[in-house]
Amino acid sequence: MSRFGMFGKLTAYPGQRDALVQHLLTAATLVGSAPGCELYVVSTSPTEPDTIWVTEAWRSKADHVASLSIAGVQELIAKARPLIAAMSEPILLTPVGGKGLTADSGR
Amino acid sequence: MSRFGMFGKLTAYPGQRDALVQHLLTAATLVGSAPGCELYVVSTSPTEPDTIWVTEAWRSKADHVASLSIAGVQELIAKARPLIAAMSEPILLTPVGGKGLTADSGR
Repeated sequence: MSRFGMFGKLTAYPGQRDALVQHLLTAATLVGSAPGCELYVVSTSPTEPDTIWVTEAWRSKADHVASLSIAGVQELIAKARPLIAAMSEPILLTPVGGKGLTADSGR
Repeated sequence: MSRFGMFGKLTAYPGQRDALVQHLLTAATLVGSAPGCELYVVSTSPTEPDTIWVTEAWRSKADHVASLSIAGVQELIAKARPLIAAMSEPILLTPVGGKGLTADSGR
């Protein structure tokens, strides 16, 4: 079983980036304790003022899919959505190892 | 002081991806214990067989720059370079928080 990961790029409506970041940090606490969540990091961009990147790593794709059903996640998505001007196709990853994955048992 | 981070995309020569991944995992152990290194994750791509993504987060850009002088890092770069067919301009990040940053003290 391979890990599953992604870089997801969100573009906030002008002036809404920091509010959207706060929703995503709340999401990080909600899904961060879900089974199989090994990384959920929220970043802004030093060059694009409305950009947010979410970096996720999961033990498996199934764990990621299951996380969307955690209590509160759909409500959070509903609150965040009006702040999102655009969402790019995520860059898909197969996380292998390194520093920061919470369960770094290798491939 | 803001954090500093990046997604770095490397393209290995055909057949060399896994060898390059091993060098990067060694790099992760070397720089992972450097002051200010909060994340250093190596991923492959489920869709592009020669692609490797390195996700880094640092307490500051200065910490990242200093890590290039750690004993062994330049030797490792010298070993890895012949396996690298292309290196894209990194996507720069300002990591804010979430799960996985080793020193998550907020902004």
